[in-house]
Order: sequence, then C-alpha cells, then structure tokens
Amino acid sequence: MLTQKECCKIIEEKLHILDLPSIPSNLYDPIRYILQLNAKRLRPSLLLMANSLFSDDIQSAINPALAIEVFHNFTLMHDDIMDNSLIRRNQQTVHVKWNENIAILSGDAMLIKAYELFTRQNAGNLLKTLTVFMSTALRVCEGQQLDMDYEKSKQISTEDYLLMISYKTAVLIAASLKIGALIGGASDQQADLLFEFGKNLGIAFQLQDDLMDIYGDPEVTGKAIGNDIVANKKTILLVLALSMAKGEQLENLLFWLNSAHNENEKKIEAVREIYNKLTLRQATQDLILNYFTNARNSLTQLNLAFNDLKPLHDLLNKLILREK
Amino acid sequence: MLTQKECCKIIEEKLHILDLPSIPSNLYDPIRYILQLNAKRLRPSLLLMANSLFSDDIQSAINPALAIEVFHNFTLMHDDIMDNSLIRRNQQTVHVKWNENIAILSGDAMLIKAYELFTRQNAGNLLKTLTVFMSTALRVCEGQQLDMDYEKSKQISTEDYLLMISYKTAVLIAASLKIGALIGGASDQQADLLFEFGKNLGIAFQLQDDLMDIYGDPEVTGKAIGNDIVANKKTILLVLALSMAKGEQLENLLFWLNSAHNENEKKIEAVREIYNKLTLRQATQDLILNYFTNARNSLTQLNLAFNDLKPLHDLLNKLILREK
Repeated sequence: MLTQKECCKIIEEKLHILDLPSIPSNLYDPIRYILQLNAKRLRPSLLLMANSLFSDDIQSAINPALAIEVFHNFTLMHDDIMDNSLIRRNQQTVHVKWNENIAILSGDAMLIKAYELFTRQNAGNLLKTLTVFMSTALRVCEGQQLDMDYEKSKQISTEDYLLMISYKTAVLIAASLKIGALIGGASDQQADLLFEFGKNLGIAFQLQDDLMDIYGDPEVTGKAIGNDIVANKKTILLVLALSMAKGEQLENLLFWLNSAHNENEKKIEAVREIYNKLTLRQATQDLILNYFTNARNSLTQLNLAFNDLKPLHDLLNKLILREK
Repeated sequence: MLTQKECCKIIEEKLHILDLPSIPSNLYDPIRYILQLNAKRLRPSLLLMANSLFSDDIQSAINPALAIEVFHNFTLMHDDIMDNSLIRRNQQTVHVKWNENIAILSGDAMLIKAYELFTRQNAGNLLKTLTVFMSTALRVCEGQQLDMDYEKSKQISTEDYLLMISYKTAVLIAASLKIGALIGGASDQQADLLFEFGKNLGIAFQLQDDLMDIYGDPEVTGKAIGNDIVANKKTILLVLALSMAKGEQLENLLFWLNSAHNENEKKIEAVREIYNKLTLRQATQDLILNYFTNARNSLTQLNLAFNDLKPLHDLLNKLILREK
C-alpha cells in the first residue's frame, strides 16, 4: 500500500497540470486559485491508498481521486459563502477575493468538472463508483444543511450532531476509500469495510477538531484557542454542555452564548470552566476512542497482513497522538 | 415522433412523482417548489421527441429527460441569486422565499440529483450521453459568466453576444435533442444534425425574446414592454445599437444608459426611437431568419420523411409566428 505522503505527492503533481480552460477567466481563475492553496489532499490520497491495496497500477484511480479533491474544494468554496468565512488556508476566500456571484458560479463549474473527471476511468467500474460518488455528494449537501439548521437551534441531541458531522465530513472520506478500493478490484465487502473505517476515522477527526479548539496547543494546531466558543459554533462540547448543564450552570452558559459583548477572553475562560466541571474533555476523548476502535476493527476485519495496511494504521495513530 | 404537448405531459407526470427525501426540508423543499412552478418543459420534451424519432419505446429516455429539467432549474435557482431576481414564473424566487444560503445549497443538491437521474439509463449509452451532458453543463456556466462579464462591459461585439447566448441558452436545448437521439439509437451524424437544429432554434428563440421586449405585444408575451431597456440589459438590439450609433445619437443612447433617473417611460421611448432609426427591428428579424433557416436545413439533412419531423417543424413555425 502506498503511503499517504506518496499519494499526496501524486495528487499535487496531477492537480498542477489539471486541464482547465483559460476563459472566461472569472469562471476558471477562482478554480485554479482554490486548488493551488496549501492542503493535505487527505481524500484523494486515501482513494489512491485504498486503490494501491488491491492493485499494482493506480493509474485508473487518479482521475477519480482528482475528482474527489475538486468536489471537496467545490464544497469549501460554497460553504465559505454560506458561513461568510473570510480566510481559507491562510488566504482570502474566493467570494472575498472576487465576489459572491463568481464564487457561486465557479463552484458550480467545479462540481461539473468533478463529475467530468470522475467519468474518466475504466468503464467497468464507472456506474458502481459513480453511484457511490453521487449518493455521497448528496449526503454532504444534507450535512451542510443540517449544520446550518442546527446553528439556529437552541439545543440538539448528541445523536443529531454526530449524524451531521458524519454527513458533512465523514462520508466523503469514507467514500474515497470505498471508490479507490472498488476501482482496484476489491470485493464489495472489502470496500464496505474500508468505508466503515473511513467513516469512523472522519467522525473521530471532527471530534478531535472540536476538542482542539479549546484543549489544543495553538503552536501545534496553528489556530487560536476558543474560536468556536467565541462564534457560538455547535461543537460536540457545546452540544454535550447544553444537554448536561443544569440550574445556575446552564444559566451561566446561556448568558455567555446569548449576550452581546466584546469580552472574548472572559467568555472562553467561563465556557472552558463549565466544560471542565462537566468533564467534557474526558467525555469527548471517550467518544473519539470509541470511533478509533471501530475504525481499527474495520481494518482488522479486512483479514489482510498488518503490514499491507500500515499506512492506514499510521493515519489512525497520528489521530490519537494529535491530542497529546 | 411524439408531439411537444405529449412529451410535456409525460414530463409533468414524472416530475410530480420524483423521488426526493423529505429531510432536511430546507434542502429539498426548495427543489420541490421550483420544479412544480408552471413551465414549458421545453428541454426534456425535446429530448423525448428526438428519442421517439428513433425508438418506439421512450422509457429509457425519461430519466435523462428529467435530469435535463432538474439541471435547467438548478441553473435558474442560482442565476436568480446572481441576477438578484425576485420573481420567477410569477412566484417568489427561492432565495427570496427562503434565503440565499438555502438557494445556493438546494441548487447544488439539484445539480447532483440531475447527474444521479441522468445515470439511470441503459449502460450502453451512458458514457457517450454523459459526456455530452457534462460538456454542455460547463458551457452553460461559461455562458452565465460571459453574461455577467458583458453586463459590466461598455461595448461588446455581436459575435461575442451571439456566442454568449449560444452557451447560456442554446447548447442545452441542442444537447437535449442530441442526447434523446443517441439514446434512441440515432447515428452520430443524425444526433449532430439535431444538435445543430437545437442550437439554431435556441439562438433564434433568445433573439426573439430580445425583440419582443420592445416590439412584442404585452398581451401575448405577458411581460411589460421595455423591461430590458429599463434594466440596461444587453440584448441583441442594445449590442447592435451601441456598435452602430454615432455622434449625437450615441451620446443620446449613452445618456439614457448612464443617467440615474426615474423616467422609465421616457427612457423606453427614447431608446426605441434610436432602435427605430437604426432599423434594428429588421436587422434582428434578419438574424432570426438566418438561424431559422439553418435550423430547417439541419432537419432537411436528416433525410427523414417530413411527417416524421412534423413536431419539430411545428416548433420552428411557432417561433416565426411569435413575432407577428
């Protein structure tokens, strides 16, 4: 199995020579711009890694992998409009650098381009993998809609939150692995196990992100502490806090969520104090460990030599090390 | 060949029972809403008509036809945001009735759904017709971008304008015919001739629309006279006027285009006067006749009995009658 690093390098090279028209420049320049931003290329790398587990020749998986990366960046371009985000990967977002109309239309063109790239593969796998891709793409839209709906809800259940991040983040990671495996000649069962691995990995990743916002090391994460708290963003910690806090503690939490003020440092401190008292760091770590274990079990059930799967185990372990 | 009316009826019935999830309602309700608005269903009807020319069983063309209609409505949903249109088919646009974020995301889901519907066809035709669909979809985006770019340009050439409406409007009509024909078993040459027919028909339709804004009968068109003039919308008449007017006449035209005022009636009258002096009604009718003739020639080259093609001839003739 190829390593994540090897696959990332292939994706970067191929993205670099991706064939996009030059005009209309207002349609295609934003696509080139977002695709060249510094990124981990996690999803297409996973697709190639899964492919290399079953096939010695990853050539036929490259276009579908590029398609997944283009699709992922389409969702970022449109999400940034919807979330009114100004910065993406340390650079201006497309709707800020150009304008909102251009970001809408360039995003549309990216989604079409993603499908076009995806169809450039062996005809034998096309319908099956395309079906996975399309149902996943719809799930991602559903996840984004649920996210927007939930931001306006006072309280949501942990189950609702986990379903939302599963749709918004995890299924595309899962589908990347499944598609790569299917193109490589895996059985349906093997492909489904890799899907399960990816889904659990993706949920664990998102929960870890939630945790790092408040308990991470800014020097490691590259992000200031407490951004999500300042923005009242629904994270697993806030969702748990809202369902567990009672009496004065709940009033205190709602005060910080609802009051207009500029005391961000105080707010972060106060909310962290509530999280601490509710032992939410441990509760979240328990959840993450649960998804981590599920992911590892899926790998085990593949019944392949540990060494063949090492790059996926490495990825999982990096996840657990991340919180230290 | 089935008539336009017969095909429209089939499309309406099938759209009515289109299988869309109920939640998240903010994602799928806007899709149901825009799809049930009163519409001509021109593109999917043309797809079925072309299909029925080569095949007795149109069943395998129905999902691709629905896909084209869903795709077309996706473009309307996003275009309405970009153009800030408040009304579509006498009803509130989606971004007004819900909000902009919902219109962006529901539109995205429609585009994905369109592809999903499109793939539900016989595997034998899939790759070929999907390739036509995808390249057409990109062209439509390019057309919308050119349209937005041109709205900000002081002057554009007639050729640029014709290319823009070809991309934005005509190619999807053309592709509908081509795809329907290919699914029905037409040869590539036959499918291409129907594409040419549709492209010329589509351009002629758009030019006719431009003409009707100022020379149409409001009781027939259902639209007030001069909307495009009030909005400074680039139409073939304005494009021709800007390239032909000189001296005082050009100054006069630019005065009405550039000055902020509320005298819409006066503006319409003044611009119409300039159009009249430049005999642009005739010039546009000549252009339309040219595309009309090209369309008819494409039909003739199919070498099929006139009666087999009657519904397409009827459609063409309706176009010419429209201006009377």
